[in-house]
Amino acid sequence: MTHYKAPLRDMEFVLNDLLDFPSHYAAMPNGADATPETVTAILEEAGKFAENVLAPLNAVGDSEGCQWNDGKVTTPSGFKEAYAQYVDGGWPALSHDPAYGGQGLPHSLSTVMSELINTANWAWGMYPGLSHGAMNTLSEHGTEEQKQTYLTKLISGQWTGTMCLTEPHCGTDLGMLRTKAEPQADGTYRISGTKIFISAGDHDMAENIVHIVLARLPDAPAGTKGISLFIVPKFRVRADGSCGEANHVSCGSLEHKMGIHGNATCVLNFDGAEGFLIGPENRGLNCMFTFMNSARIGTALQGLAHAEWGFQHSLAYARERLQMRSLSGPKNPDGPADPIIVHADVRRMLMTQKVFAEGHRMLLYFTAKLLDITHHGSEEERKRAEGRLALLTPIAKAFMTETGFESANLGLQCFGGHGYIREWGMEQNVRDSRISTIYEGTTGIQALDLLGRKVLGSQGALLKDFLEEAGAEVQALAGNPAVAQWVPLVGKLAMELGEMTKQIGAKAMANPDEVGAASVDYLMYSGYVVQAYLWLKAAAVAAEKADADESGFYKAKLASANFYFSKILPRTRALKTTIEAGAEPLFALDESAFAYL
Amino acid sequence: MTHYKAPLRDMEFVLNDLLDFPSHYAAMPNGADATPETVTAILEEAGKFAENVLAPLNAVGDSEGCQWNDGKVTTPSGFKEAYAQYVDGGWPALSHDPAYGGQGLPHSLSTVMSELINTANWAWGMYPGLSHGAMNTLSEHGTEEQKQTYLTKLISGQWTGTMCLTEPHCGTDLGMLRTKAEPQADGTYRISGTKIFISAGDHDMAENIVHIVLARLPDAPAGTKGISLFIVPKFRVRADGSCGEANHVSCGSLEHKMGIHGNATCVLNFDGAEGFLIGPENRGLNCMFTFMNSARIGTALQGLAHAEWGFQHSLAYARERLQMRSLSGPKNPDGPADPIIVHADVRRMLMTQKVFAEGHRMLLYFTAKLLDITHHGSEEERKRAEGRLALLTPIAKAFMTETGFESANLGLQCFGGHGYIREWGMEQNVRDSRISTIYEGTTGIQALDLLGRKVLGSQGALLKDFLEEAGAEVQALAGNPAVAQWVPLVGKLAMELGEMTKQIGAKAMANPDEVGAASVDYLMYSGYVVQAYLWLKAAAVAAEKADADESGFYKAKLASANFYFSKILPRTRALKTTIEAGAEPLFALDESAFAYL
Repeated sequence: MTHYKAPLRDMEFVLNDLLDFPSHYAAMPNGADATPETVTAILEEAGKFAENVLAPLNAVGDSEGCQWNDGKVTTPSGFKEAYAQYVDGGWPALSHDPAYGGQGLPHSLSTVMSELINTANWAWGMYPGLSHGAMNTLSEHGTEEQKQTYLTKLISGQWTGTMCLTEPHCGTDLGMLRTKAEPQADGTYRISGTKIFISAGDHDMAENIVHIVLARLPDAPAGTKGISLFIVPKFRVRADGSCGEANHVSCGSLEHKMGIHGNATCVLNFDGAEGFLIGPENRGLNCMFTFMNSARIGTALQGLAHAEWGFQHSLAYARERLQMRSLSGPKNPDGPADPIIVHADVRRMLMTQKVFAEGHRMLLYFTAKLLDITHHGSEEERKRAEGRLALLTPIAKAFMTETGFESANLGLQCFGGHGYIREWGMEQNVRDSRISTIYEGTTGIQALDLLGRKVLGSQGALLKDFLEEAGAEVQALAGNPAVAQWVPLVGKLAMELGEMTKQIGAKAMANPDEVGAASVDYLMYSGYVVQAYLWLKAAAVAAEKADADESGFYKAKLASANFYFSKILPRTRALKTTIEAGAEPLFALDESAFAYL
Repeated sequence: MTHYKAPLRDMEFVLNDLLDFPSHYAAMPNGADATPETVTAILEEAGKFAENVLAPLNAVGDSEGCQWNDGKVTTPSGFKEAYAQYVDGGWPALSHDPAYGGQGLPHSLSTVMSELINTANWAWGMYPGLSHGAMNTLSEHGTEEQKQTYLTKLISGQWTGTMCLTEPHCGTDLGMLRTKAEPQADGTYRISGTKIFISAGDHDMAENIVHIVLARLPDAPAGTKGISLFIVPKFRVRADGSCGEANHVSCGSLEHKMGIHGNATCVLNFDGAEGFLIGPENRGLNCMFTFMNSARIGTALQGLAHAEWGFQHSLAYARERLQMRSLSGPKNPDGPADPIIVHADVRRMLMTQKVFAEGHRMLLYFTAKLLDITHHGSEEERKRAEGRLALLTPIAKAFMTETGFESANLGLQCFGGHGYIREWGMEQNVRDSRISTIYEGTTGIQALDLLGRKVLGSQGALLKDFLEEAGAEVQALAGNPAVAQWVPLVGKLAMELGEMTKQIGAKAMANPDEVGAASVDYLMYSGYVVQAYLWLKAAAVAAEKADADESGFYKAKLASANFYFSKILPRTRALKTTIEAGAEPLFALDESAFAYL
């Protein structure tokens, strides 16, 4: 039932035509090996693995789920073998430090590659995905010994990693966390507490698991300033690097979730487990924030993944399923009915999925490129890229996942009643997608981060900087007849965004709740505008190449841009009005008056 | 984990304050017994049954699902016993004909009562719900003998019923259906074919099941004009009315669905089953259409059900869950954090669910009242109510279920990661809700029905009539200081709707696909406007009573109206723009150019 195909043509459009990754890589200290030919070869190879190995396991993972028996977690059939292939192919090492066994290719290439892995099978992709979180922590904050012991094994893929943050009483509000770390005479710590919602928290795919755990030292300050980071391996590591006895950390149960059944979401009990401090005491949250952007962009990818998966499958179905006649006359007169792709509303659902999948790809790669620069650019380039990324990360995470979920639902809807049945996989796509607006910071949290911390927190500087640069690029296209019709619209929206920001800032002086009241609508508005900017650039590039292209690819890109501007971007009209309505309608009711039951 | 409470206070507001059901019932030939006291007593009793018996079975139904073994279907634990209680209580008979054992109360009362049943446990409520479809068919088209044999047993609840329409290759496009009916010498028919997606198609709750089956007679005309209706009982009925030998109809399997697991969705194989023609030959679809409005309103209710269920549960959670501090300063300074209901965005999610639940209740009861009039009014009243109902039914069905699904998702979102876990029931609410925009005609089909058949098909007359009457009511409120601020807005939107309709009609002359291109946005726009009209009337009534009411109920109603006008109604701004963008952006792409894979 799986038809996933690696969308290499569109990926190359974004990489080469739109964002000029060849020049970007050529300018990077670690980019010399990432020639266009190498990039293509890598993506083709990853595409085959995604299509042939991972995609067929997607439904298996959902129907079998992970099993927990006598404290041991077993992953669905085929998951372990696929992981072995992944490790054999050297994929975990792609973008990591050669000093610890990595291939040293640019970080963005790993992101682009992971689009393929994660679209084919999101639940499976989370196992190596979580390892990247642990690897980034170790790379940035680990001692040389910790890197040699743990990072090398994570980079080879021999071990996997997790991030252990959430506890039963706190997810968003990590300042409340209670897990304890007691220092021992030998310099280690005893970690005790319960962590929940730990993705890839236990499994049978690798010989050891490196947990990165947030915990409190004795007498640590209350709140977020008293949290430290610890390495807690599932099995203790011997001096020769091999796995020794089990540590005192165990999987207490698996969560029964709506979706992503193939990934083990664990309750982990730490019962005096041996741990090792990583980074400075009480600076754990700060350490985590250094790679929060990267983690959030990894989750933003989920919006792309489910939009692309749903689009491909509903497109195939819409071309085959015969039902009713076109309103403008039969299009398949010799058949019993027309394929449903002839119907305007089915096209609306397909095109919506399509422009979100393609728009999300543009935004994802755009942020991945910025992330490269934050690692390897000149000091000035880094600073600028960091600011840009700080602004775009919450937008990418929340906007892409919200519209990714919308897209997954449109994909299901194209199937009618058959979409509600398990066999077609469309309802799994919806269920798997649903978590994406929640974990790694909910949409509401991303929106507060964007409007409160990033935009207003920088006195508007981060936004102004972006709007100026993007605005100049937009205005430069005003003379291009292929796209000139959309330039005033995009320009107007960008100006509106600036004005609304000032208004909210002014209102927030009197009432801080104005920030929260506007935040989600503001984030969504920003998302539509950022993608409009990318669609405009994409259309300009496509227009240039359309005539010489017999495949029709670039003409289709122009048609997609037209759909985006005509049928998606108008959503900003509603958001502007609701933003301006402010906080009053939200706070008029007393808590006690919400319901009379 | 269940907290469902019958929302009797708000139900009474809609019945008594807003829609004046007491006068409505007093004027009806069968309304004399439906005094306000009786109505209240009935709803209180149904509320207790819903809260105490059905609500606790909602999660059970989801986790156990229905089982199919050796051709027999077993419903989840407790379902059968609950159904026996329901029958003992005489609930199936509430609004049916006393000549066949019914209690003869107005049809709308059954709809209002079923809000309670179906919100508490949608999957369970579908069993008696489908029976109503069969009962309506028999009431309107059955012979006296058929009524005595089947209708009496359905009204008593001793048997249940189904509607067998869909086949594997056709759902929307019933003209393609293939099930055959071969006439026999004794006047019966042999029915052969496969039906799928048959809700409540087989189960262990009642001793017999009366299937109403669409099938083709030999030599019937092709398409929708060659379909006839048949009664096919699961067990043949003896002359004395008792159940005899099994008929040749069997459940081939149960569908594995995303949700509503407690309801048995069956593949039914008819293998020369004995059937009885109901209604005239080849007029089966017409017969079905006579109660299509009632069936669609029954599904519209699902939008209300999941919005109300999600709202009640997320409200309870938001009052208890402590996480982060209010942006405007601690509201629970002695606790470790504030309850999340203090956060603006949580309030946005709660209020959105609330105004959809309450708005859907208003629209549901409004259509139920019209349905009463189509049965019992004077000829002129009937005709007017039929026109109004024809217009409002597709709006109610699609608008309420689309926004009901949105609400269910917001309810889940309020729980953060806990919403994604089965134990809280929020993800079940989303999964159960997801079918509602599909069955009984998808949103796309409802939208074509509204814009193509009802609005343009009547040359705009049905819409004009409604807008004139509602418009006069709206304008009459212009002098009411409590609601005057919203009158120009609602008036403007109603005028816009009329203008857009003319524009679409004009464009459709040149290109019929313009109808399909505008249809869903047009339907959603209409939904927001119809609910704005109801919220305006609700606000006016509430304003009148607010001062004398110490409970604060009416003040809360005004605040809810304000939220609806400020934060929900602006969605029309986006829809207007996308409607005006027309069909071109949808048809610019060749079918072959949708993807380059």
